[in-house]
Amino acid sequence: MSHTYVLVHGAWHTGQEMEAVAHELRACGHTVHCPTLAGNRVGDDRSTCGLADAVASLVAYVESAQLERVRLVGHSYGGMVISGAAEALLPRLSRLVYVNAFVPLPGECLNDMVPPHYKALFDALAAENDNAVMLPFPIWREAFINDGDMEVAQAAYVRLKPHPYRTFTEPSAITRPIAELAVGKSYVNCVLDTALPASLPWHPRLSERLGLFRYVESAGSHEAWFTEPAALARAIERAGRC
Amino acid sequence: MSHTYVLVHGAWHTGQEMEAVAHELRACGHTVHCPTLAGNRVGDDRSTCGLADAVASLVAYVESAQLERVRLVGHSYGGMVISGAAEALLPRLSRLVYVNAFVPLPGECLNDMVPPHYKALFDALAAENDNAVMLPFPIWREAFINDGDMEVAQAAYVRLKPHPYRTFTEPSAITRPIAELAVGKSYVNCVLDTALPASLPWHPRLSERLGLFRYVESAGSHEAWFTEPAALARAIERAGRC
Amino acid sequence: MSHTYVLVHGAWHTGQEMEAVAHELRACGHTVHCPTLAGNRVGDDRSTCGLADAVASLVAYVESAQLERVRLVGHSYGGMVISGAAEALLPRLSRLVYVNAFVPLPGECLNDMVPPHYKALFDALAAENDNAVMLPFPIWREAFINDGDMEVAQAAYVRLKPHPYRTFTEPSAITRPIAELAVGKSYVNCVLDTALPASLPWHPRLSERLGLFRYVESAGSHEAWFTEPAALARAIERAGRC
Repeated sequence: MSHTYVLVHGAWHTGQEMEAVAHELRACGHTVHCPTLAGNRVGDDRSTCGLADAVASLVAYVESAQLERVRLVGHSYGGMVISGAAEALLPRLSRLVYVNAFVPLPGECLNDMVPPHYKALFDALAAENDNAVMLPFPIWREAFINDGDMEVAQAAYVRLKPHPYRTFTEPSAITRPIAELAVGKSYVNCVLDTALPASLPWHPRLSERLGLFRYVESAGSHEAWFTEPAALARAIERAGRC
Repeated sequence: MSHTYVLVHGAWHTGQEMEAVAHELRACGHTVHCPTLAGNRVGDDRSTCGLADAVASLVAYVESAQLERVRLVGHSYGGMVISGAAEALLPRLSRLVYVNAFVPLPGECLNDMVPPHYKALFDALAAENDNAVMLPFPIWREAFINDGDMEVAQAAYVRLKPHPYRTFTEPSAITRPIAELAVGKSYVNCVLDTALPASLPWHPRLSERLGLFRYVESAGSHEAWFTEPAALARAIERAGRC
Repeated sequence: MSHTYVLVHGAWHTGQEMEAVAHELRACGHTVHCPTLAGNRVGDDRSTCGLADAVASLVAYVESAQLERVRLVGHSYGGMVISGAAEALLPRLSRLVYVNAFVPLPGECLNDMVPPHYKALFDALAAENDNAVMLPFPIWREAFINDGDMEVAQAAYVRLKPHPYRTFTEPSAITRPIAELAVGKSYVNCVLDTALPASLPWHPRLSERLGLFRYVESAGSHEAWFTEPAALARAIERAGRC
């Protein structure tokens, strides 16, 4: 069965970093799109671009490509964006798939779901860099890509780009919980993910905000997109199938 | 080493649905029984049959077959039944094995251990159907057999039968915690099981009621009996061995 | 890349019980030391030997062998010892690796981190045996080596030695949290470990005391050193690499 997937990247990433997983999904016969969100494109103004801009860019992408029966997959920050786009795109969606992704409640911003020490760190970084933030390499290496070796960790890190911090601080414009949307929901949990601490976890803290949802596990860390693309593609396929 | 296993099915199931795992255990040289409990047999009165009836039917089965050194394995609701039968069968038991199963405290009924939204759903379904409940397919598909594809999910669902709701509402007649019974205990946890939410989980919430127990993991969802019979049989064997 | 590992055993064990994993690491080209701590050697006075003695013996071992760029690995109680030795050995360390190990806060003893029923048990055993404690076989078999068969469980048990209880009751002499030490930290979690109950777990309860740390999982129980040496060695290598 051939399905249509739209893979929505996380902070610091672009659609390019989704391509290894997209390649695995295409090899199974699926059609896969990897758009880069507003705020993460070359030339975007990272000091002003916010969550609503990113959401609008995703809605525009799916509508202009006239995609139907879409499996809309969000990774990490991408969960904020697919959540924001879901209501407008509802007639075009078959399922929402969150991959260690944020699931906001109405009025919440991404920073409302992270540990205080991350928020403090990002605040300081944004203040120093015209409201764009980078993730320090030691955090990336130990807590985001803990399953990779140093070579993989460095090769992936040099591809990251400064991220517009307003997308972390601007509240989601959703007006009702994602659980109430009339579409299937799945949550993929990479079991070595420590980008959020295990005491304030992705799953079940955020996954259970989906109401009735399908739970799928995958090998790998938060950056399984680099370290475990084949396993992650299989997990996304199990999450996205009927 | 050849052992005797009695596999006790969960709600909506019969002994027939245990046969795929039983087949794997028999292939390792074990003797395996898969009785169908009172309340789940063809012709049983699902409006009146309760937990005590199911327990009595299991005790009668093991005694009339004169089984000895039994590994008594309960799945889900089956945990209520093996718990209720354990004291009467104690001289015949080598070990109690719970597979994502309920472990009651004295005086508790199954509904005391499930999330409020399940209880509300079951109450409504029972009121409509002469006190017999079926599990709605969307819950089955997403939360019980999340690791299967749609074909497997549907094929398994059509085998389910309405379940006598009194078995969920009648308190267990056990007079002391299972932890105090002088027999070994094991808990098998299928790692993709989301039939209970991860925030109100099988393990460790219910497993630790066993006191000193042996923990074993298996691949698969709550319905690994359909989706992962070989892995589940290996896990049950590790749980049941000396 | 060849690294230097020092594997620090847990309670009841000696360096000998680390050798199966050490063998696997040496096969990958690493240099591995498995010292036996003061208190666990033949002839040591188990009624008086305490945590400070064990820590001093580890510091002396590493210094007298003039080891550099050490991956210092502690298992279980060994986490108390590597924590106590870390500041003195800091210039010689590349990384601290905890394997289902205790991570004390300043002033804490091991017993401060275990369930009350373990402390009560150990108190009673120590009172009967001149302040040396043994682990009762049923607890060993069900909760420590739950993934082994009876033959493996018994063969490993007969190698255990009475352990000096003062090492469990003497507070750690560390003066600041391990998180503040300027060295990398990793935590290896064997997923079937039930030596501590899952409701009072190794991870994340103790692992997150490391601050920024690298999380790695391994197959096996608390005694994966006996049951899963190859998998555990691979996990320690992922934990110890740059």
